[in-house]
Amino acid sequence: MDIADSIQLIIPVAGIAAVLFALWLARGVLAADQGTPAMQDVAGTIYEGAVAFIRRQYTTIGILAIGGAVVIGLVIAIVEGPTVADTDIYGTELGIKTGLAFLVGAICSMASGIIGMFISVKANLRTAAAARSSLVRAVQVAMRGGAVSGFLVVALSLLGVWGIFAAFGGLSDMANSAQAVHDAPFLIVGFGFGASFVALFAQLGGGIYTKAADVGSDLVGKVEAGIPEDDPRNAGVIADLVGDNVGDCAGRGADLFESTAAENIGAMILGAAVFTIAQANGWPNPEAWIFFPLVVRAFGLFATMVAMFFIRGREDENPMNILNRGYWVTTALSVVGLAVTTYVMMNTGTDTTGANGLPAWVWFFLAGVVGLATSVAFVYITQYYTAGTFRPVREIAEASKTGPATNIISGTAVGFETTFVTAITIGIALIASHWLGERAGITSTVDGVTRNVGGIFGTAVATMGMLMTTAYILAMDTFGPITDNAGGIAEFAKAEAGAREITDRLDAVGNTTKALTKGYAIASASLAAFLLFSAYIDKVNLILQRQIDAGTRAAGTLLESVNLADVGVFVAALIGAMLAYFFSSLAIRAVGVAAQAIIVEVRRQFREMPGIMDYSQRPDYARVVDITTRAALRQMILPGVVAVATPIAVGVLLGHEAVAGMLMVGTIAGVLLATVLNNGGGAWDNAKKYIESGHLKDAEGNVLGKRTDAHAAAVVGDTVGDPFKDTAGPSLHVLVKLLATITLVLAPLFIR
Amino acid sequence: MDIADSIQLIIPVAGIAAVLFALWLARGVLAADQGTPAMQDVAGTIYEGAVAFIRRQYTTIGILAIGGAVVIGLVIAIVEGPTVADTDIYGTELGIKTGLAFLVGAICSMASGIIGMFISVKANLRTAAAARSSLVRAVQVAMRGGAVSGFLVVALSLLGVWGIFAAFGGLSDMANSAQAVHDAPFLIVGFGFGASFVALFAQLGGGIYTKAADVGSDLVGKVEAGIPEDDPRNAGVIADLVGDNVGDCAGRGADLFESTAAENIGAMILGAAVFTIAQANGWPNPEAWIFFPLVVRAFGLFATMVAMFFIRGREDENPMNILNRGYWVTTALSVVGLAVTTYVMMNTGTDTTGANGLPAWVWFFLAGVVGLATSVAFVYITQYYTAGTFRPVREIAEASKTGPATNIISGTAVGFETTFVTAITIGIALIASHWLGERAGITSTVDGVTRNVGGIFGTAVATMGMLMTTAYILAMDTFGPITDNAGGIAEFAKAEAGAREITDRLDAVGNTTKALTKGYAIASASLAAFLLFSAYIDKVNLILQRQIDAGTRAAGTLLESVNLADVGVFVAALIGAMLAYFFSSLAIRAVGVAAQAIIVEVRRQFREMPGIMDYSQRPDYARVVDITTRAALRQMILPGVVAVATPIAVGVLLGHEAVAGMLMVGTIAGVLLATVLNNGGGAWDNAKKYIESGHLKDAEGNVLGKRTDAHAAAVVGDTVGDPFKDTAGPSLHVLVKLLATITLVLAPLFIR
Repeated sequence: MDIADSIQLIIPVAGIAAVLFALWLARGVLAADQGTPAMQDVAGTIYEGAVAFIRRQYTTIGILAIGGAVVIGLVIAIVEGPTVADTDIYGTELGIKTGLAFLVGAICSMASGIIGMFISVKANLRTAAAARSSLVRAVQVAMRGGAVSGFLVVALSLLGVWGIFAAFGGLSDMANSAQAVHDAPFLIVGFGFGASFVALFAQLGGGIYTKAADVGSDLVGKVEAGIPEDDPRNAGVIADLVGDNVGDCAGRGADLFESTAAENIGAMILGAAVFTIAQANGWPNPEAWIFFPLVVRAFGLFATMVAMFFIRGREDENPMNILNRGYWVTTALSVVGLAVTTYVMMNTGTDTTGANGLPAWVWFFLAGVVGLATSVAFVYITQYYTAGTFRPVREIAEASKTGPATNIISGTAVGFETTFVTAITIGIALIASHWLGERAGITSTVDGVTRNVGGIFGTAVATMGMLMTTAYILAMDTFGPITDNAGGIAEFAKAEAGAREITDRLDAVGNTTKALTKGYAIASASLAAFLLFSAYIDKVNLILQRQIDAGTRAAGTLLESVNLADVGVFVAALIGAMLAYFFSSLAIRAVGVAAQAIIVEVRRQFREMPGIMDYSQRPDYARVVDITTRAALRQMILPGVVAVATPIAVGVLLGHEAVAGMLMVGTIAGVLLATVLNNGGGAWDNAKKYIESGHLKDAEGNVLGKRTDAHAAAVVGDTVGDPFKDTAGPSLHVLVKLLATITLVLAPLFIR
Repeated sequence: MDIADSIQLIIPVAGIAAVLFALWLARGVLAADQGTPAMQDVAGTIYEGAVAFIRRQYTTIGILAIGGAVVIGLVIAIVEGPTVADTDIYGTELGIKTGLAFLVGAICSMASGIIGMFISVKANLRTAAAARSSLVRAVQVAMRGGAVSGFLVVALSLLGVWGIFAAFGGLSDMANSAQAVHDAPFLIVGFGFGASFVALFAQLGGGIYTKAADVGSDLVGKVEAGIPEDDPRNAGVIADLVGDNVGDCAGRGADLFESTAAENIGAMILGAAVFTIAQANGWPNPEAWIFFPLVVRAFGLFATMVAMFFIRGREDENPMNILNRGYWVTTALSVVGLAVTTYVMMNTGTDTTGANGLPAWVWFFLAGVVGLATSVAFVYITQYYTAGTFRPVREIAEASKTGPATNIISGTAVGFETTFVTAITIGIALIASHWLGERAGITSTVDGVTRNVGGIFGTAVATMGMLMTTAYILAMDTFGPITDNAGGIAEFAKAEAGAREITDRLDAVGNTTKALTKGYAIASASLAAFLLFSAYIDKVNLILQRQIDAGTRAAGTLLESVNLADVGVFVAALIGAMLAYFFSSLAIRAVGVAAQAIIVEVRRQFREMPGIMDYSQRPDYARVVDITTRAALRQMILPGVVAVATPIAVGVLLGHEAVAGMLMVGTIAGVLLATVLNNGGGAWDNAKKYIESGHLKDAEGNVLGKRTDAHAAAVVGDTVGDPFKDTAGPSLHVLVKLLATITLVLAPLFIR
């Protein structure tokens, strides 16, 4: 066993280390000061609401997932006969294994969502308590609480993929069962689909809940009853605070769990192609090409653990700088880890395989660096478009002077504009990593035609590089709802002014980190989707080749290209692009319907419990939480079903090439629309904050702050942006990845 | 000369007949009653403003077009050497001819815009005057005014294509120069590009002008000075009335001029492919396949002329029914025309070429009927989504009860939702007409591979069928701004209440007809774009084949497919989809900037001319019109340049296959985003009107009309929708077609 083999051991080691590290962080957070009894009271109510939601939501999703697993298993068992299966096993055995993988993926995804939520509803109170004494201490508590979620999500995805892979023979003895090693990646696609399936419903349900609670309680409290936002008399307010946790923590956790799982599987399927080449050419450790994605991610986890110790700073420092410091440490260590992994594992047996007489691994290392650079680029691009210090947000704030209409028009223009730099950055990343990968000089000759397969593997390495920092990014994301909740708790429990000032500052930073994560999630989704396209085409061709070999199909009918000029492919592409809009429309409308349920209930409480208004009666918080939960879960079904059913319908009706067109153009459309919705929403939110902080002035230099017409206009924009950035946008991330995993798993159904 | 030859004579006959008919209609309109001196005064001011805008705008566009023609001519002359040209002529000769065609296309497009505008600013006064006595009479005057524009646009496009075609040898004696006949369609693509180029700037400039005037004068008048909308003291109001003409008449005229021209050229290029087959098989009249699109359109013109005599009805009738009657007559007669044309011209020498032993023409006829049915479907789909009698508009009106934010959210959800039925309808139309075309049994065998070329020709015939009713649709569209202006004139000149009631009813119908035209334009643009893709691929392959024959290119490198799985194509597709958003962002922002110019000027007038407020001083209308004109024209340059430069940059950097991917996905994205913007905007507008007409009630059943909070919220939605539906949306129609013609003309530049 040489180093390229033994380095694989780092996968379970890193996974388990990350889990232990998360537990250690959690212990520290739980042991921290819990503040005043008033604070504990509010936090307890939020905790109960969150647990109630999670229990009910994951029961629903669990039932859906079991049903999904059975259906998938049956479909695979029936359609994947010996002539269509892409692996050595088929029929019932393949059906059972795929269904099982689906279920494990679903369970891991649910677990990461639940655990993340659990710790975040504990960390919010501790953050509020810490804010009473120290900014840095509050940052640390919130960030560590977020990191628990980050580490667990990434570790579960790593251990899950690796475990399924091991169970399905991926760790077989090479000498005896090379085929088993080659087949294993194809067997674990069910894991990715299971993860996507849960992520879709977790994100939709959580997203609808959080914004229905937000919009509903604002409308019935502020607008109708004329009491302030976050007023304890409004029974919807607790639902709103619960919503931050279930939408952001649980939703984004499931979202990024899915990203890493899907990216791993896509990259491993591409690795299987290089594995075949490596075997044929007698390179050392061919299986290293399959394991590579998992090892890279293990290094990313270690990099993030180290970075956690760099989250420190001065009391008067901008909290964003403290967080950025840790991010840069993660990135720098990831570059080192990437260099080590590519050097050790990408061994072609000679040092001059690549262009310019360089070894192959150098080119792949550079492709990985492109991925890390893309991740950094997105962090700063999102900051530019959604932070109050730059042109876009100021422009929206200025437009608020002339009323809500110009605020909306200006925000829409900004949202649309953000697609430019997003598309250009993704485009450069794809082309550069593909170009670098091609220089690695890895070719495959089939039927006399030689192809360079390094290009697509280069984009795979870039995606892996990008996803090395996932745990840290996710920690920053969960930092958002924790600090947001901490602010709410401080407000609710009438904490000291100093504490509230600190939680306000952290909340503003949290808005930015939440936006960052979305930019990162969208960029990684597009890179991962491109891998999954290739994996889909590989899988379809394996099936087609088997049919050709069996004589049931004419030679020369492999899927060589996804031809947009074909009318079926074009129509499927049109439907894919439409799906992004239609799905968003359903998600946005769902928020409105669920919000109505809250309004009706809070109105009833005001009417039937007259003591609420003079504080002599405590509103029935639990009932509102319960009603919101039920409404949100009911509303998540239709968009969820549309998302799952459309690709299946298109595939069955128009065939395997058309569904590929749908997948690709649907991805493009979904990524761009999510960019518009996320960044537009973030910019509207911060334009309101910009005005509230007194940065906007009229022609005479007077500050236009709260309670001015400009502020009222900005509130309209903020409210419009809420369902865009917290429901529809993030759900689109999941949709994009679901399209990819669904087509990958059900490919045999679409062959014609 | 048999009947299939002599039927071609109908082309110039129909073109000239339509021009004469338009002149006759114009004479009738101009001879109509001109109302009171007060009305004439307002109308005169609008007329002056419109003429001033048109003079300045078309001078700018004319200069740009001359520059464009020279550049295009030079580029073609340099890159299209003997080995890349797709025709028998090349180099300087081809450059000059293409530049010339560009210029003729540009001139025809400008002429149709100018003439349409001219008659519409005359018809508005006559419609207002007629409304004093009779609803039917007012409908007739407005519709005839609109028809002048409709007939001239279609006739100019028909005569222009035919004239260029004739000048370039398309009418050559078949026996001697079959090659010249085959080549002619390729020579006239410059005409389409010229038309697109002018349409882009006409639509952008007009669209920015009209909404800047609308938003700017509302903000400075209603919001700042507190005077009513359309108050004569507000100098911006005349600019607003001028805007309706320059945005809607001139813009949509150029838009549909381009649609018909581009569709004709695309269909004729496909016809050239069938021409070759017809020649090889010895079918009678092979050239009939090239002429077919022009002949079909000639029949469409006659159908529309007859329909003009059916625009009559009762005084108490819904004006929409009167217009629908004419539309159905046009459609019915078009079906007859289509049957005659396909029967006479699509002659394969035998009656059993097609499937089921039927002649080929039957299948193509049915494909054409699919196109006509699509046109009817879009008329009703748009009505459903934008008229107050159906669920979507009511939903938005209901959402207005809880304020502007929920109004915007609801309108966005409706806008997104409309993509569903749009995409499905277009998808069915494409697949059905392709399927029918394949049944015609027309095949071509190249290098031993037999292909069915009837499918794509079937989609061409469907597009032609759809565009047969263009003149009538355009007349209905121009009906919109004419009646809108008539209402403004009646209001301004304080006409009798009866007259204002009639103009209000017509104005509401005009809103619907304007929305219809956009739905029609978008559907026809997608069908036409699909033709142009095929034409692009044909053209590229002609060039590649010539290079292969000349030995400068390896065999087997024809453009067989546009492969989305290729990284370059995928990135180009991503950029194409992004372009739709980015271009819209620039267009929307341009409205805001131009509106600021108006606000500053009207503020100055209020300040420096104190007599305005007590009516003792007349505001300086001309100056506001002039300032708006200059601001709009300045603002149209950036989006225009982005639209032209992006496809060229992508083509040069990423090559001929990638640019095809950009074209196709850009079209999909553009069509869907335009649908969202047009229908969302239309629905917001009519939700406001729905509330103003007293249809919205609160929980107790009280009417929530004007001057309620719900109405104020609906006004916000209406204002937001304005630049969406009148600037960005229609400009996207033009962008989509420009992408197609630009890549078609510059294809040789992208070959790699």
